[in-house]
Amino acid sequence: MRILVLGGDGYLGWPTALHLSAAGHDVGVVDNFARRGYDSELGATSLVPIASLDRRVLAWRAISDRPLATYVGDLTDPVFTHHVIETFGPDAVVHFAEQRSAPYSMIDQAHAVYTQTNNVVGTLNLLYAIAELDPSIHLVKLGSMGEYGTPNIDIEEGWLEVTHKGRTDRMLYPKRPGSFYHLSKVHDSHNIEFACRTWHLAATDLNQGIVYGQETEEMAAHPDLATRFDYDAVFGTVLNRLVVQAACSHPLTVYGTGGQIRGMLDLRDTVECIRIACEQPAQPGEFRVFNQFTEQFSVRALAALIQEAAGGDVPIAMIENPRVEADEHYYHAEHSGLLELGLRPHLLGDTLVQSLLGLARRHAGRADRSLFAPSVRWHWTESPVGPQAAALVA
Amino acid sequence: MRILVLGGDGYLGWPTALHLSAAGHDVGVVDNFARRGYDSELGATSLVPIASLDRRVLAWRAISDRPLATYVGDLTDPVFTHHVIETFGPDAVVHFAEQRSAPYSMIDQAHAVYTQTNNVVGTLNLLYAIAELDPSIHLVKLGSMGEYGTPNIDIEEGWLEVTHKGRTDRMLYPKRPGSFYHLSKVHDSHNIEFACRTWHLAATDLNQGIVYGQETEEMAAHPDLATRFDYDAVFGTVLNRLVVQAACSHPLTVYGTGGQIRGMLDLRDTVECIRIACEQPAQPGEFRVFNQFTEQFSVRALAALIQEAAGGDVPIAMIENPRVEADEHYYHAEHSGLLELGLRPHLLGDTLVQSLLGLARRHAGRADRSLFAPSVRWHWTESPVGPQAAALVA
Repeated sequence: MRILVLGGDGYLGWPTALHLSAAGHDVGVVDNFARRGYDSELGATSLVPIASLDRRVLAWRAISDRPLATYVGDLTDPVFTHHVIETFGPDAVVHFAEQRSAPYSMIDQAHAVYTQTNNVVGTLNLLYAIAELDPSIHLVKLGSMGEYGTPNIDIEEGWLEVTHKGRTDRMLYPKRPGSFYHLSKVHDSHNIEFACRTWHLAATDLNQGIVYGQETEEMAAHPDLATRFDYDAVFGTVLNRLVVQAACSHPLTVYGTGGQIRGMLDLRDTVECIRIACEQPAQPGEFRVFNQFTEQFSVRALAALIQEAAGGDVPIAMIENPRVEADEHYYHAEHSGLLELGLRPHLLGDTLVQSLLGLARRHAGRADRSLFAPSVRWHWTESPVGPQAAALVA
Repeated sequence: MRILVLGGDGYLGWPTALHLSAAGHDVGVVDNFARRGYDSELGATSLVPIASLDRRVLAWRAISDRPLATYVGDLTDPVFTHHVIETFGPDAVVHFAEQRSAPYSMIDQAHAVYTQTNNVVGTLNLLYAIAELDPSIHLVKLGSMGEYGTPNIDIEEGWLEVTHKGRTDRMLYPKRPGSFYHLSKVHDSHNIEFACRTWHLAATDLNQGIVYGQETEEMAAHPDLATRFDYDAVFGTVLNRLVVQAACSHPLTVYGTGGQIRGMLDLRDTVECIRIACEQPAQPGEFRVFNQFTEQFSVRALAALIQEAAGGDVPIAMIENPRVEADEHYYHAEHSGLLELGLRPHLLGDTLVQSLLGLARRHAGRADRSLFAPSVRWHWTESPVGPQAAALVA
């Protein structure tokens, strides 16, 4: 198949591009390097050194003899988006190209508007390009488990059969997320479902849990193939951040009581889920939703796991939760769709945690400990300067 | 109370500003005149001549001795939005300032992106301005009954108690609307609910049905106080458009079988609902939702009503539906919240239809019959030129 990976220079996009290429697909990578720009803005860097996209592509070509087409540009530019779809002519488009940090979206008004505009407009332009150029293109869109929030009923895969006053309908699962970032993905899902229903597009919405890990089979072949590994409080996902804290002998920072339960998955499962979704596409007119995670953990259980793997000498620090969310809540989410299509999960075990700890210890000298503390608060402060200034002085 | 009416120069915003002023409130009007600009773009004009905002305000001052503060600018400009809220210091903000036509949002990619950006970013900026300057300001936001689509279960007022696998939660009512415009309001509702939950803002989301009529007590005092009356296929709401067709002895155009059922209300009830919502505000942290309509009608029942009122000699033409929507469907929507707060509805009767027919006949010389036919199609055509070109040649 010909598969275009949007956001193919990012944490997950890059390993996905390699994995699809290794599986024999013709892969193109689209990126505007926004993620590298956020590093400059926030004064952060990947714990693991990463090569430029050009070097990455050269290294992959040298190792695999497989080319990767690259397109540099912004999906919010409709001319660029149309051009890329027209030129590459994909069978499937994997869409990672969104601002993906909840704290980043909550910095201030400008970051909230940027996040929603960037994500929603990019996806709208993509829907129009697909509908106009080739409605048979399968859209594989990255959503988030965070879209659902923490309802008091079981979370189903995108749709919910509702019986009310004696009548029944299959409805979109109601969502109440906890950040303007997660809301942008809720907006995307509504727009995409409409395009499927109205224009008969085929889409798979992957509501992904929190990803951990940094290695896949393909990336192991050369250091220039490494993907980024974020540990800062803005872009670092929880398990990755805790592992780097442990490697730096820094207290493991848990927000509130750490009773927040989330679905999680190994990076190797992310890339495999994408391959499975591409190779077994949604039907024309179908808005197919999978919950893309393999296990549920509470944050305090994760912290305990890492504490134990690290030898037990690193303390756990329960700090004030910068977010507005329930510390303790019911959580049970279905995730059978991808298993039924053939996913064989890598479950979180001591070996993986030890491997991540080893990685973090090798690169611990690159870690900036000042980036561990949350710098963005969901609550408005009493201060007249507003939350951005509060974030900057935190 | 001090009440700011955003979009206060529009079809509903203007009569609302007058109604609130007449009720003794201190009213400010905010507008960027986008609605008058769409007229220029589409080659359409209000059937009833309308004065400039300046003339309107002068006329109201002369009649009522009550001033209306005016602010000209765009809510997508965060500096302007912040400035207006800070300067006027409202107790309540009534937010009509959105692109409000479903067909307009479906013209092409640019109009879809404009509609969602304009509506979502304007509302985000407003939420930030309120949260930063005065979280006690009550936001009264105009939504649409069209956000719900046509589910096979009863439509409740914004929230739905769901029991699933033995557990129960109060959830946002699932929505599946039929245009990028309606989707923009779904996005707004999700963003506003989040702001209420996270920042303890107080908001009332009014999911309004289709409004008909052109007269209120306040506007009757002088011709310069008249609000616009749209009859074109892009901005004209169904009953208003059918009445003008009847006045022009033009066939009453019904899309498909006309079995589409919609909630509707008289313009006089719109302005009264807004007054009621402002004077009995939502509580801090509350996302309160009302379905703002008074009666349900099918489109073919409306057409028959108008045909009969017009003397029976104007034919009904069932034309191909330019939209993608169910022609025949279950529809039952709750709308008790505003009645409980004191709304006394003006139900649609022969007197009102006769009065509207009289109005339309007085101004029939201004009607451009070429604007009756739908010019925007929801379906993608087979033509390589795409839907915009299809719209232009229709």
